[in-house]
Amino acid sequence: MKATGIVVEYNPFHNGHLHHARQAKEVSGADAVIAVMSGQFLQRGEPAFADKWARTQMALANGIDLVFELPYVYATAQASDFAKGAIALLDAAGCESFCFGSEQGSIDPFHASYSLLREHRAAYEASIHEAVQTGISYPKALNKAYMELTGSESGFADLTQPNNILGFHYVEAAEKRGSAMKPLTIQRISAGYHDPVDRNSSIASATGIRKAFFEEGSIEEVSAFLPAPSLGVLRAFHAEYGAFGSWERFYPLLRYSILREKPKNLSRFSEVTEGIEHLIYEAAKKETEFDGFIRRIKSKRFTRTRLQRMLTHIYTGFTWEQLRSFEEPSYLRLLGMSETGKNYLNQKKKNIALPLISRAADLADPMGEVDIHASFMYGLGMGSGDMKKEFTTPPCYFG
Amino acid sequence: MKATGIVVEYNPFHNGHLHHARQAKEVSGADAVIAVMSGQFLQRGEPAFADKWARTQMALANGIDLVFELPYVYATAQASDFAKGAIALLDAAGCESFCFGSEQGSIDPFHASYSLLREHRAAYEASIHEAVQTGISYPKALNKAYMELTGSESGFADLTQPNNILGFHYVEAAEKRGSAMKPLTIQRISAGYHDPVDRNSSIASATGIRKAFFEEGSIEEVSAFLPAPSLGVLRAFHAEYGAFGSWERFYPLLRYSILREKPKNLSRFSEVTEGIEHLIYEAAKKETEFDGFIRRIKSKRFTRTRLQRMLTHIYTGFTWEQLRSFEEPSYLRLLGMSETGKNYLNQKKKNIALPLISRAADLADPMGEVDIHASFMYGLGMGSGDMKKEFTTPPCYFG
Repeated sequence: MKATGIVVEYNPFHNGHLHHARQAKEVSGADAVIAVMSGQFLQRGEPAFADKWARTQMALANGIDLVFELPYVYATAQASDFAKGAIALLDAAGCESFCFGSEQGSIDPFHASYSLLREHRAAYEASIHEAVQTGISYPKALNKAYMELTGSESGFADLTQPNNILGFHYVEAAEKRGSAMKPLTIQRISAGYHDPVDRNSSIASATGIRKAFFEEGSIEEVSAFLPAPSLGVLRAFHAEYGAFGSWERFYPLLRYSILREKPKNLSRFSEVTEGIEHLIYEAAKKETEFDGFIRRIKSKRFTRTRLQRMLTHIYTGFTWEQLRSFEEPSYLRLLGMSETGKNYLNQKKKNIALPLISRAADLADPMGEVDIHASFMYGLGMGSGDMKKEFTTPPCYFG
Repeated sequence: MKATGIVVEYNPFHNGHLHHARQAKEVSGADAVIAVMSGQFLQRGEPAFADKWARTQMALANGIDLVFELPYVYATAQASDFAKGAIALLDAAGCESFCFGSEQGSIDPFHASYSLLREHRAAYEASIHEAVQTGISYPKALNKAYMELTGSESGFADLTQPNNILGFHYVEAAEKRGSAMKPLTIQRISAGYHDPVDRNSSIASATGIRKAFFEEGSIEEVSAFLPAPSLGVLRAFHAEYGAFGSWERFYPLLRYSILREKPKNLSRFSEVTEGIEHLIYEAAKKETEFDGFIRRIKSKRFTRTRLQRMLTHIYTGFTWEQLRSFEEPSYLRLLGMSETGKNYLNQKKKNIALPLISRAADLADPMGEVDIHASFMYGLGMGSGDMKKEFTTPPCYFG
């Protein structure tokens, strides 16, 4: 059996994701699609809209064969580390290829960009360093340096596009580890990352869908953009918790976690740097709602995404010291499987390069303890008193 | 002008407190009664039923002339440190005497007990140490050691009684600092500390009153035990917050503060010792309500009060390191004054031995920062987003 890998968040699983999953299977010619998926906290530094179990159910019901959890350590990291963790897991799971959606739509420009940057790394990094000194954000500095390198030449990936950036990091991570996986990309259709939803389309970005939901207050309002199984799973999740996950909901605990500390001590949490801890503390003192709070601290230098990642780490209590103690993913946590996925595991189990973990109780590993802890923190933020879910929920099976 | 000092919590101010305040003035012959009062967290390790401003209003409306805040560092400490801080403040405020309610009702037995313990300190402490090793609680060990010393002789204070224990520590603290204040005691009338309320009496303990309130859900149910001004203040407090302070209300944040930590790291908080941190963590994981949580951890060795003090420090983030950095009270924070109190301050201001602080903004002192912080933490626990109250509330004035 052959598998192709994809890296996902499914926050929530929408029609665009369905298209990507089907295309990935088609262009790779694989028998199974393996997804590495963020857990309870996401790459943009947010609690998940629905928990990892609900998102796994949506994935399986929409044709994904295996879902493995991307550990918190990588899931909440900046793009290059996010990609490094995800690609390592897909490699360990025995994928023959991996496939990402991109604005670019063809793979050669990614290879070209990677080769160029590898050759000119010193000049590239010097240029980034210089740009950051002028006060512009890190993503903008990357982009500026990259433009200087590629100039007006064609044949390179357009790294001003968010999905191209992620794709570039996947290709880079695979190259760096000398992975045998073949990189593939498919054209991302419609709906930019931050676009508002278009009521005449069946495709909207997850960000647009969440935003529309929180504005309208009902999942039915965004049903046109979701495959039917997603709708059912999301309704059940909402019935259980009375809400979807968001910083707005988590803010009372986040605010307490900030104000409980002396401002200077906030800098022990991962990503908190350059004196931003004082601004975070003062903003939390003043603002009773998340929206006002984040508006008060965000700037060109400290983008919303970067700040939200800091806030995620403050919220969960994840420190620089912990971050620095991890090198490589050390396990494959199985969140769910289809019948095909089950067969794949049976056939390949001797080729899987990391311990395969089906139950949290077997996760006696510092990196895994962080995931279990993140699940507790997510549950408390959702107002759920049940700390056992992480231990009592078996991998989802969709046969 | 002459003042007598009292040490209070007024949680809430009831008829027994009114009796005590009047008697203190009478037996001391003083012109003014000065109260040193715990702030937002109390000696039994609990958030206050009503905040320090409401409790100051009750005090002033019931005849107290000056209310100073007992800093968090002392207010949440075991009896000997609680007494040390309170006596130091009354001394600094220029009191000629201090007066406490006791089951004993006369002062000589306290002097006799203090002299005896001072003489036999080594034997006394060895006996306590030995008793604690057998697994009995510290208060019980104290009592046992004391009984061995005093034997069947009369003339000593009965230190099995909670108010006698506090009184002993006041006398001890005054003697140790060579204070010129004269110790006085009055008989505590009726209502033991933990007695349920007696509907045929006008006197009930604050504990009994709080318990009856939380069972009945209405302040009117306990109105017979409260002076009229207390009732009005408590109604206004309840109207503002929709609740009174209790661990039940604070438990979602307390639980999060516990579960956010690695269990072993909980031992950095003040009073957390002897491996209890693991039990606290596991109980928080299981229990969604405070009552079940505290039942799960309390034992002969770890009494409810001792545990609650630990929980207070975990909740506010107050560490052993902070605790150890403080020696003596460093300021007198004025919470409120009557016309008489105002005159007293005007007349005595040159004799007052510590900086007199009327506004939180002037409290640039590490011990004072802890008080301000405790006020923020109290506000969040009450569900109030207003972090400015500590800074915008002037001392109460009752003219």
